[in-house]
Amino acid sequence: MVRIAVIGAGRIGAVHAATVARHPDAELRLIHDPVGNAAEQLAAAHGARATHDLAEVYDADDVDAVIIGSPTPLHVEHLVGAVRAGKAVLCEKPVDLDLARVEECIAAIAGHEHRVMVGFNRRFDPSFAEIHARVQQGEIGPLEQLTIVSRDPAPPSPAYVAVSGGIFRDMTIHDLDTARFFLGDIVEVSAVGQRLDPAYAHLEDFDGAVTTLVAASGAVATIVNSRHCATGYDQRLEAFGPLGSLEALNQTAGSVRHSSATHAGAAGPYLGFFLDRYATAYRDELSHFVDAVRTGRAPSPTIEDGRAALVLADAATRSATTGERVLLPTTARSHP
Amino acid sequence: MVRIAVIGAGRIGAVHAATVARHPDAELRLIHDPVGNAAEQLAAAHGARATHDLAEVYDADDVDAVIIGSPTPLHVEHLVGAVRAGKAVLCEKPVDLDLARVEECIAAIAGHEHRVMVGFNRRFDPSFAEIHARVQQGEIGPLEQLTIVSRDPAPPSPAYVAVSGGIFRDMTIHDLDTARFFLGDIVEVSAVGQRLDPAYAHLEDFDGAVTTLVAASGAVATIVNSRHCATGYDQRLEAFGPLGSLEALNQTAGSVRHSSATHAGAAGPYLGFFLDRYATAYRDELSHFVDAVRTGRAPSPTIEDGRAALVLADAATRSATTGERVLLPTTARSHP
Amino acid sequence: MVRIAVIGAGRIGAVHAATVARHPDAELRLIHDPVGNAAEQLAAAHGARATHDLAEVYDADDVDAVIIGSPTPLHVEHLVGAVRAGKAVLCEKPVDLDLARVEECIAAIAGHEHRVMVGFNRRFDPSFAEIHARVQQGEIGPLEQLTIVSRDPAPPSPAYVAVSGGIFRDMTIHDLDTARFFLGDIVEVSAVGQRLDPAYAHLEDFDGAVTTLVAASGAVATIVNSRHCATGYDQRLEAFGPLGSLEALNQTAGSVRHSSATHAGAAGPYLGFFLDRYATAYRDELSHFVDAVRTGRAPSPTIEDGRAALVLADAATRSATTGERVLLPTTARSHP
Amino acid sequence: MVRIAVIGAGRIGAVHAATVARHPDAELRLIHDPVGNAAEQLAAAHGARATHDLAEVYDADDVDAVIIGSPTPLHVEHLVGAVRAGKAVLCEKPVDLDLARVEECIAAIAGHEHRVMVGFNRRFDPSFAEIHARVQQGEIGPLEQLTIVSRDPAPPSPAYVAVSGGIFRDMTIHDLDTARFFLGDIVEVSAVGQRLDPAYAHLEDFDGAVTTLVAASGAVATIVNSRHCATGYDQRLEAFGPLGSLEALNQTAGSVRHSSATHAGAAGPYLGFFLDRYATAYRDELSHFVDAVRTGRAPSPTIEDGRAALVLADAATRSATTGERVLLPTTARSHP
Repeated sequence: MVRIAVIGAGRIGAVHAATVARHPDAELRLIHDPVGNAAEQLAAAHGARATHDLAEVYDADDVDAVIIGSPTPLHVEHLVGAVRAGKAVLCEKPVDLDLARVEECIAAIAGHEHRVMVGFNRRFDPSFAEIHARVQQGEIGPLEQLTIVSRDPAPPSPAYVAVSGGIFRDMTIHDLDTARFFLGDIVEVSAVGQRLDPAYAHLEDFDGAVTTLVAASGAVATIVNSRHCATGYDQRLEAFGPLGSLEALNQTAGSVRHSSATHAGAAGPYLGFFLDRYATAYRDELSHFVDAVRTGRAPSPTIEDGRAALVLADAATRSATTGERVLLPTTARSHP
Repeated sequence: MVRIAVIGAGRIGAVHAATVARHPDAELRLIHDPVGNAAEQLAAAHGARATHDLAEVYDADDVDAVIIGSPTPLHVEHLVGAVRAGKAVLCEKPVDLDLARVEECIAAIAGHEHRVMVGFNRRFDPSFAEIHARVQQGEIGPLEQLTIVSRDPAPPSPAYVAVSGGIFRDMTIHDLDTARFFLGDIVEVSAVGQRLDPAYAHLEDFDGAVTTLVAASGAVATIVNSRHCATGYDQRLEAFGPLGSLEALNQTAGSVRHSSATHAGAAGPYLGFFLDRYATAYRDELSHFVDAVRTGRAPSPTIEDGRAALVLADAATRSATTGERVLLPTTARSHP
Repeated sequence: MVRIAVIGAGRIGAVHAATVARHPDAELRLIHDPVGNAAEQLAAAHGARATHDLAEVYDADDVDAVIIGSPTPLHVEHLVGAVRAGKAVLCEKPVDLDLARVEECIAAIAGHEHRVMVGFNRRFDPSFAEIHARVQQGEIGPLEQLTIVSRDPAPPSPAYVAVSGGIFRDMTIHDLDTARFFLGDIVEVSAVGQRLDPAYAHLEDFDGAVTTLVAASGAVATIVNSRHCATGYDQRLEAFGPLGSLEALNQTAGSVRHSSATHAGAAGPYLGFFLDRYATAYRDELSHFVDAVRTGRAPSPTIEDGRAALVLADAATRSATTGERVLLPTTARSHP
Repeated sequence: MVRIAVIGAGRIGAVHAATVARHPDAELRLIHDPVGNAAEQLAAAHGARATHDLAEVYDADDVDAVIIGSPTPLHVEHLVGAVRAGKAVLCEKPVDLDLARVEECIAAIAGHEHRVMVGFNRRFDPSFAEIHARVQQGEIGPLEQLTIVSRDPAPPSPAYVAVSGGIFRDMTIHDLDTARFFLGDIVEVSAVGQRLDPAYAHLEDFDGAVTTLVAASGAVATIVNSRHCATGYDQRLEAFGPLGSLEALNQTAGSVRHSSATHAGAAGPYLGFFLDRYATAYRDELSHFVDAVRTGRAPSPTIEDGRAALVLADAATRSATTGERVLLPTTARSHP
């Protein structure tokens, strides 16, 4: 049994808490949140303790590992604090919106990186993970082109957008990590941003984007993003190689198809958003983390993966703003 | 070049005339129809001659083969006439609605059966033919269960229904032949009829039916029929064996899929009716016939196949009416 | 919280125990099994007590409801015992293989039927339940034809077959209940059985079957069964009416499709067997039962539904054996 | 009847000749090819005349329109010659590989542009055309993102590659026209090229590419190209807007799906190459041209569309080579 504390009792903290509570090899012990009684409510729902005091998390003798689901600007502080307290850490993405801070964080935990995992949950989606494994096994030959379509069902609130770091650091970053997961080191980044909603006309940010990545291997990844999709959470991926292709289709709640005088074989809308679409991914991500904590093996994706995805997000932001293709120097790539 | 006359300038005659006119190895020479100027119009459209006189068809020196698309009650007369005139014959299904007449017809053309083909066009549908070939090649192992769904887009007129011979002889007969094509000799027939439309309450006939056939091999075929289908012409078939299954899906005009807030991946309605759905089947049926005429080989399906399908339709009619399972004596089966 | 005991620690008992253990409104208290230490092992896995003594189940003050997953011949004894002890009961299907015993059981619990639910779990499958609801709402008009394909991935052991009551009472009974769920009272049953595996040549039983049911409404249901399917657990259903159709497709573990030089869009095999395919159905079935226990409302399907499905299974067995269509007298139908 | 001559008896000329020969409103009169007896053979197959002399085409009194299927470097000469001879012209794409020559051509036929159509056949593909029409009708709201996947089944010969003008002018140009068809004027072009086959290492050309286009409307088109695809001719398109999406899937020859112990629902490979995939598009393209000739209306796509697509191909080539995003000055856009 790995005994776990969750920092942050908001939406993502609640996902992790529920996932831990149901996991056969994990126990939820403690929830931290400084605001109101969010920690208390979430803790009560799962039979755990609550606290407003971070020190209580770090000092808890019955906590082996900490899952960080606090607001992004607090990730680094919580991550460093937990690592220094000897806890294993699973930190939500992004580690931070500022690359310099991420690098300071890495420096601050030097020697303990193998105790830290970053929550790029999509690597654990059964369909994406199956495609990754089959590509590794050579089923389609060397990967040549990866195409990702990733659209949220509805735009976040303006308040969220304002502090999100922009579409590439907030939303595309998942797809950028997926691209690295499949293609390895990326050497060139090109991006185009769209401002479809007039509300974006005065923002630095975009609500649609196409990002093209070139890998050191010569493979190319294309990422199509939108902040909205009428049919639900549009999450598709296609890996293409000389021997064939592997595709992850959108998923619906059941397997019902409707036919009528106007159409044939209509499925229901896609699974609504990440809590549904990636429920299994969150569970399998936790299993990987718990196994790593139990066995002492380094989990993956690492904080270095978190840094590398942010480098790509920064490059995509710059490319979309300036129109130039951004070449990544070797030093900007991952250090394996 | 095989030079062809078409008897009957109605809907099915027009299909055959157009198919002949486009066929690289056939020439349309003559159209016969006794009514009005139907023959003239159809002939003009394809640069052929027209006649109201059957003798002109039989005596034509420049006609090698005759396609019979006249009303069902005239099939036997035209078939025997054409065969006696030395023509090869492709006769639309059913040969006749009366088994005794079919048997008289077979007797009348004794020695010339190999010059006669019956128009069970679905055997030539590329998807059904592909499945048949793959089953024969053993891809799914010995065929165990065949499931056919066959629904017309809309019911025929009451006038047509009155002379149709009933759903089993008129509509199911196609599926019965398909079942024989896949399963060989049938030894038992069970059928259930439905009278869904109140208009059928006073008829001997049905507008929905389920027919179950047991083959000598032990395989079973199930046929689900309806006289209507809101989405179009519903034509599906699944062959199931110990190693897997082969399925022919419904077809739509293009490959467009629509997704919206209410549904995902909706195709358009099915191809409307047999002229669209089986256009290629009519062409490939003609190719088979033309090849047979050119090479002197016996075409297939034969008039014996026409008789055997009618035996099954009679049995299904009796089963649906009386509730008994009808066992087919060996003598009712095909003589290979 | 509804406090639950499970009788039977075999495969299906383990499914129910795990489902109860995970359910937010239920608590697993007690497991009964007379054989070896099966009860102890299952109880330990979920933090419940174990017993070899039925009386302990009936007398337990901390048990509100009993789930019966014992061997079929013991269902009636356990059901009556639990009801007499004042417990609510969820009994696995079939209630018994012998209709007379089911009727004795119903008599024995007279006045308490509303405390008993029969485990036809497929009614709770999200896809089937969604189709049922949409049919009830009139989306396809009055239901005319229901087509069920239901094939097990691999045949059971000969030992199991010998005591199974035959394919119709053991396997088809699920589909028969589904047919009643959609069509209401059934008035005619026709069935054809297959003995594909030579091992069945000397058995009364079949390893393939097609069953056709006519409802009082005039609708028809067709059920195609096989004891094996190379691709996995083949579970499909199509409801057809004048306005369209609703179809439940087979389900696969993920949404991956593979394309290569030989094929396009290939999914993985179907979900393996009922534990996977109907995992959600078991959970939703339990939710329904728990809600009924908490609110005092009668659960559904009822023991009368269990009896009616067995009447249909008996009729199908007789029809497959004798070749006759079996008419069901009004008295054999459900008493609402 | 529109009487037609075809210049060029190679692969694409043969496609057009056969399409004309089958068209109800067109007549194939004359085939020109200077090499060997190609013209004679093609003409004989369709009952037309053959010539080696271009003047015979231009002077033919019984020729209303000319289809130009000669090698690309000869297009302009043949186009200008035919227009000056008073013929209507359908010219294969690209008009020329050199933008300056295309502009000279446009100048040379000034006043007669409405007599010239350029063969971007994909606009006439029924699925693409249906999606275009439904987008125009507002079914998905204003178009925001267009995603095209376009992969050839196998690379062309090195000899062809050497004179092809590069992947963007030879292959992507179809997709660039499709993008303009859907999005209107394009203002920015970014492209990334791949050299996957080592044979391309020493060439200026690419064998894979991703092109991103920004339209004046703010919509974005993404084009993923490869010179090879194991599964066949991969031709997909998705139009996405605020109300939903419309997608054209790949097409297979029939509708057969295979399931086995290893996979479920596998279709056959995609239709092999453009002659199969776009057979209907060639026919409908010809119908549009024939209608234009008969009615005197200007056909579409125009030579200006041919020029605009080449501008985009040039820009994509430059972007892929230099890494810069290419902004298109207003003067480079179409003049409506």
